[in-house]
Amino acid sequence: MTRFAKGVANLRSSQIRDLMSLATRPGIISFAGGMPGNDLFPLQELDTIYNNLTEKEKQVAMQYGPTCGLPSLLESLAAFLEKKGLKVGDNRLMITTGSLQAINILAHAFVDEGDDIIVENPSFIGAISAFKSYQANIISVPLKSDGIDIEALRQQLDSMPRKPKFLYITPSFHNPAGIVYSKENRKALIELMEGRDIPVIEDDAYSDLYFYEEDKEQLKTIQSMERKDLDVCFTGSFSKIIGPGLRLGWMLVPQHIYEKCELIKQSIDACSPSFTQVIADKFLRTDVIHSYLERVREEYKKRGLAMIECLKANLPSYVTFVEPRGGFYIWLQLPEGTDATEILKKAIDKGVVFVSGVTFDPHETRKNAIRVSYCNTAVDVIQKGIPVVCEAIKEVCGQ
Amino acid sequence: MTRFAKGVANLRSSQIRDLMSLATRPGIISFAGGMPGNDLFPLQELDTIYNNLTEKEKQVAMQYGPTCGLPSLLESLAAFLEKKGLKVGDNRLMITTGSLQAINILAHAFVDEGDDIIVENPSFIGAISAFKSYQANIISVPLKSDGIDIEALRQQLDSMPRKPKFLYITPSFHNPAGIVYSKENRKALIELMEGRDIPVIEDDAYSDLYFYEEDKEQLKTIQSMERKDLDVCFTGSFSKIIGPGLRLGWMLVPQHIYEKCELIKQSIDACSPSFTQVIADKFLRTDVIHSYLERVREEYKKRGLAMIECLKANLPSYVTFVEPRGGFYIWLQLPEGTDATEILKKAIDKGVVFVSGVTFDPHETRKNAIRVSYCNTAVDVIQKGIPVVCEAIKEVCGQ
Repeated sequence: MTRFAKGVANLRSSQIRDLMSLATRPGIISFAGGMPGNDLFPLQELDTIYNNLTEKEKQVAMQYGPTCGLPSLLESLAAFLEKKGLKVGDNRLMITTGSLQAINILAHAFVDEGDDIIVENPSFIGAISAFKSYQANIISVPLKSDGIDIEALRQQLDSMPRKPKFLYITPSFHNPAGIVYSKENRKALIELMEGRDIPVIEDDAYSDLYFYEEDKEQLKTIQSMERKDLDVCFTGSFSKIIGPGLRLGWMLVPQHIYEKCELIKQSIDACSPSFTQVIADKFLRTDVIHSYLERVREEYKKRGLAMIECLKANLPSYVTFVEPRGGFYIWLQLPEGTDATEILKKAIDKGVVFVSGVTFDPHETRKNAIRVSYCNTAVDVIQKGIPVVCEAIKEVCGQ
Repeated sequence: MTRFAKGVANLRSSQIRDLMSLATRPGIISFAGGMPGNDLFPLQELDTIYNNLTEKEKQVAMQYGPTCGLPSLLESLAAFLEKKGLKVGDNRLMITTGSLQAINILAHAFVDEGDDIIVENPSFIGAISAFKSYQANIISVPLKSDGIDIEALRQQLDSMPRKPKFLYITPSFHNPAGIVYSKENRKALIELMEGRDIPVIEDDAYSDLYFYEEDKEQLKTIQSMERKDLDVCFTGSFSKIIGPGLRLGWMLVPQHIYEKCELIKQSIDACSPSFTQVIADKFLRTDVIHSYLERVREEYKKRGLAMIECLKANLPSYVTFVEPRGGFYIWLQLPEGTDATEILKKAIDKGVVFVSGVTFDPHETRKNAIRVSYCNTAVDVIQKGIPVVCEAIKEVCGQ
């Protein structure tokens, strides 16, 4: 076994697995998962797409494809991303099995054992696992309500004896923090990072899931913003905008980084599933993706607002949170010294499950937070479950 | 960039990509790929399966699944493997995106930079890439016509100052060598490996594609054979028995190895595509897999026998090969000192492409061999293309 495999990382992994199996137990109310609602999948659209596939397209679906992805999907996805303002032309696109694989491949391309990297705290658990699997030395910088703490990041960068291999961030509808980087924060970040020869990995799985049209300008990705002398490796996913079961995401990265990533992808699984690539391509080309997105945005907004309202009505005043304006998550900040695991145990006894915040801390020490998701729970169930969470909080932390 | 990414491995990778893009050029006859024939995919069966999926099954298809695979597929696949004699009960099954991912995960679980591993020479290029990506020190042992060279392996093992992390082998219908390990060879291998605390990775993507029913006994996997004190990590794939576009394979490994592999899989892509897992499960549960396998076995046999016949009629006598009895490949052994790349260039000029043997040598030095595949070429095209290959050989090596 490798030094990594011998490590302790599997302890947390099995805890998460237990939690997830609990979360799907009949009768339990789950705010734990980050998966779209089963009831929201575009099944009718899927049927129409499947039944209109030609024999030739089905053959393509069953065959190996190029490592970088099927040419037709690369084309339609490029158009989709360009419409969002992304700079596709100067970069290369690669289809991956979810954006997690894109992040994993980038980690493999950049990290030798013991190399420093910088992430936000809290951060996406999947990315943390990927970075740990290559034995990165993870350094974290706190998040504020309007983005990454620029001053803390500056101090960190200026104090490091050797350059970190990259900075990994999730500027839009952060998982788990639920926040959005403000436009000013994005600009300040670019300014800070320019000319340092440290690439930024911008993870963007949620930016299409905004509640308010007027936020679109703020959600403009860092990859699409003016900058000089700064490599941005952009990752995205079909998981939240069609379905995770397709297992498709992408990276959009500068050519010199792409070449290494293609080689790594080739050694992992040769190519992504052609079958689901053919389906995703049709979603994009028929514009079904846009009507579907309108539909789910509406539904996630209903669920999100219901959860916000319910939390406001039931939370003790010492618990704070940033109201989400899109995405899947709300991050509840508990008083210093609280161990959210105690609250989780009580909540489970009462039939409700969520994820305790320590899961998203790369150093596994910050215990006073809770992530609740509204993506996979109907409004009436949210209204039933959130008071239970609040009750459990009060039982542990006081009224 | 990592030490790996900075390496030279991408040179060969881009050569292969160029070759593959050449291989799909209109008009060119290709014996290069290892993909099933487009004309052979079970499209009618697929339509029936898709159109009989319930709404609930389609929801499962669109959703995340467990890291190890969908429970229903794990069950049906376990039954399929048990029918082939594999020891499922004492082991754990995990669904992966192709058997290449299974091999990659095992490499990540076992190999720290610079660790020794042993492979056959020649060996599967995908596995070589995976092992190199973790910076393994690859040691190779020659293949004979009836299996791995047991004496060479024994000497290798006995002379090593530190234990290799594993032995990677492909006993049935070897890619690229086309051979099958004899029953005696398999037994001798088990005897040699027992008690050494070196796991064997048994890669078995082709054993269902035999030409002759009577060979089934010989094809019995090493995993299913009597042994003591020897861990076997078995990998398999749906790529050659349904379609590579599903991007599904599996590993069947002892529990203590499985735990590490699940953790790694979780950090790569969280889970394999549910969509294609639902489809594969139906292929297994409806027994369509068996009728389909009978059909393709018949067709691959026709193609294989046509290629053998054609080679016998046209090859100069100094070129030798083991007649395949299944699988996809024939391995042509050229005289010592020949550079098959020269032959490949001439063949391409004449409109035929194959893979030169050096590709499958982990040390990239043995140039005097050629791999020709019959899997993706109709009999009449084989009859047209093989004489061209033989002509190119004669032009380079003499009559």
